[in-house]
Amino acid sequence: MRVTSVESIPFRIPLTEKKIWARGALDAAEHVLVRIRTDEGLTGIAEAPPRPTIYGESLRSIVAAVEDWFGPAVMGLDPYETEKMLDRFERWIGNPTARSAVDMALTDIKAQAAGVPVYKLLGGWTEQVPVCVRVPTGNADAVVRSCASFRDRYGIVTFKIKVGMEPREDVATLRAVREALGPSVRLCPDANQGYNPATAVRVLKAIEDLDVTLLEEPCPIDNDRGRRKVAESTTIPLMGDESCTNLAEVRRQLDMGVVSVISIKVARTGFAVSERIAHLCEAASVVNLCGTQADSSIGVICGAHFAASCRNVKMASELTGFMDMVDDLLAETPKIENGMITLSDKPGLGIVIDEAKLRKYRI
Amino acid sequence: MRVTSVESIPFRIPLTEKKIWARGALDAAEHVLVRIRTDEGLTGIAEAPPRPTIYGESLRSIVAAVEDWFGPAVMGLDPYETEKMLDRFERWIGNPTARSAVDMALTDIKAQAAGVPVYKLLGGWTEQVPVCVRVPTGNADAVVRSCASFRDRYGIVTFKIKVGMEPREDVATLRAVREALGPSVRLCPDANQGYNPATAVRVLKAIEDLDVTLLEEPCPIDNDRGRRKVAESTTIPLMGDESCTNLAEVRRQLDMGVVSVISIKVARTGFAVSERIAHLCEAASVVNLCGTQADSSIGVICGAHFAASCRNVKMASELTGFMDMVDDLLAETPKIENGMITLSDKPGLGIVIDEAKLRKYRI
Repeated sequence: MRVTSVESIPFRIPLTEKKIWARGALDAAEHVLVRIRTDEGLTGIAEAPPRPTIYGESLRSIVAAVEDWFGPAVMGLDPYETEKMLDRFERWIGNPTARSAVDMALTDIKAQAAGVPVYKLLGGWTEQVPVCVRVPTGNADAVVRSCASFRDRYGIVTFKIKVGMEPREDVATLRAVREALGPSVRLCPDANQGYNPATAVRVLKAIEDLDVTLLEEPCPIDNDRGRRKVAESTTIPLMGDESCTNLAEVRRQLDMGVVSVISIKVARTGFAVSERIAHLCEAASVVNLCGTQADSSIGVICGAHFAASCRNVKMASELTGFMDMVDDLLAETPKIENGMITLSDKPGLGIVIDEAKLRKYRI
Repeated sequence: MRVTSVESIPFRIPLTEKKIWARGALDAAEHVLVRIRTDEGLTGIAEAPPRPTIYGESLRSIVAAVEDWFGPAVMGLDPYETEKMLDRFERWIGNPTARSAVDMALTDIKAQAAGVPVYKLLGGWTEQVPVCVRVPTGNADAVVRSCASFRDRYGIVTFKIKVGMEPREDVATLRAVREALGPSVRLCPDANQGYNPATAVRVLKAIEDLDVTLLEEPCPIDNDRGRRKVAESTTIPLMGDESCTNLAEVRRQLDMGVVSVISIKVARTGFAVSERIAHLCEAASVVNLCGTQADSSIGVICGAHFAASCRNVKMASELTGFMDMVDDLLAETPKIENGMITLSDKPGLGIVIDEAKLRKYRI
């Protein structure tokens, strides 16, 4: 089986409301659909979401990278030749979501060819993955209402709450959610490096009694000494995200010993490098979850397959990006019930593009 | 697809001549054939070679471990559920070749079900793997004759030469091979921890000019300080083998930074853990080769598939164990031509047991 074509199609779908976090904002999903075809008639699909303030990619840079580099690099390749793909991709630096989308679309094809869902091809750990939802930013009352609504409507009990801007409000919000929703929900605040180390220590002290599941990236990722101090000051697990965007960064963070959870985002490390990251983490007794890159249904499905494949993904994964969009490209979007996504047993990723929607949203 | 039976069949095939190394000796291959069947009619095959002086396993302990632990643990499992297998196997400590044989036989089934050779399922790096041969021990003249004969007969140009007993003879042997066979052959002496650190430093100094590819385990593996001293004293890469028999040991050795090559033996880490080891090594810029556990054709084929799957296996692999046995269980044994084994494109491992031979050699 050989790759015969690699397409990159930019599309734009508005968000239901503007997303705000410590370092940026977003009002529409402008992603690139990557579609790969083979001589045996199989089609693999994935998406690349540009995040200029995080990875320096744009819609146009992704299209260019797929058309000029990563696409041609896999033309004629057997989709099973993952190691050759990785080797060829090493020629170019950066462009993480462009290369990852090609990797994931090829894996979609591999699994279809094998007749198994991707999560089985990659390890087959489970069929159901617990979901963590990114709660819209707002004051304490609004956040409590959002959490309650996600819990009541979808059974989601793990909440990613954006903090890192106003320490006092952050603490008040977390306390309000814990008090309103009781001991059974999980609080996963994400500071996106918004505190300085001293503030992070203070905030962590102020929330020590709240049974917080983890705090994500409390302070600037290049302040190694500060991060060590923060980690030593608290019993709350710290999660690495911006500090852990590729294999080399993960290795260094594991060496440094500050993080005890690492967020794997298939949007930036595809399946092949995500597997390597999980293996490094497993060997270091650091656990993973699958983080969100504000993915559409396509990216969420990719993340869900990876989370289901891998036993080191031990915590609820952020698989709700598609819920923030007014529409989607898929004939069928993921269902969240009892706080879980249940994987389809269709071969591959099980993604079917609605061609009418693609015509409507492509740009 | 579900596993319906797991068999373990001990067999004994005499060696063409007795094998001697710094810490032991061997005059017959007494291994355990592991054969797994599924409800879809597929059969997976692997072997477990007991090495009492290395891993503490015996023929009987392997049969018991497969019958009582690792076999029942995978009964009813889908062979694709590798992560569930690893999780269940964690209950028991040690017994590396017993658990690895089950892992590899399941991978054989996965690849057959997918319709691809194992080396493709695991990454598809190459179709041909260069071979390193373990040269029979003897005086310098005998070793030179053996090397020349392997080169002339099979095109093998990488020689694993057992040292670690008599430093002066070791140096003389390596020098004799280099002088007799010229600059194009690769010398991979293996001391099996036979020197003390000071002797290792002296030997390495004495062979600095011989363009030696690597020295394997010069001195006792638990003498961390000694190993560091040895590594600092030389430009010859040190290879870890006995110090790197599982994932945790590999992680520690990578942290220590003494070894720049690590031997992966699928006999002791199967495919699943071998992949993890390769991923850790890749992230640390340490390369791999596939080492021999004095495997029969079955183990050699497993090793060849792993070596071909993985781009971090960058050096010639020790895939000649079967050549030291008077016979084999397979209808067709591996061919070494131009110093390479070419992988079959049959689905799975491509192993076919000769039932008449199995009847003859089973014990």
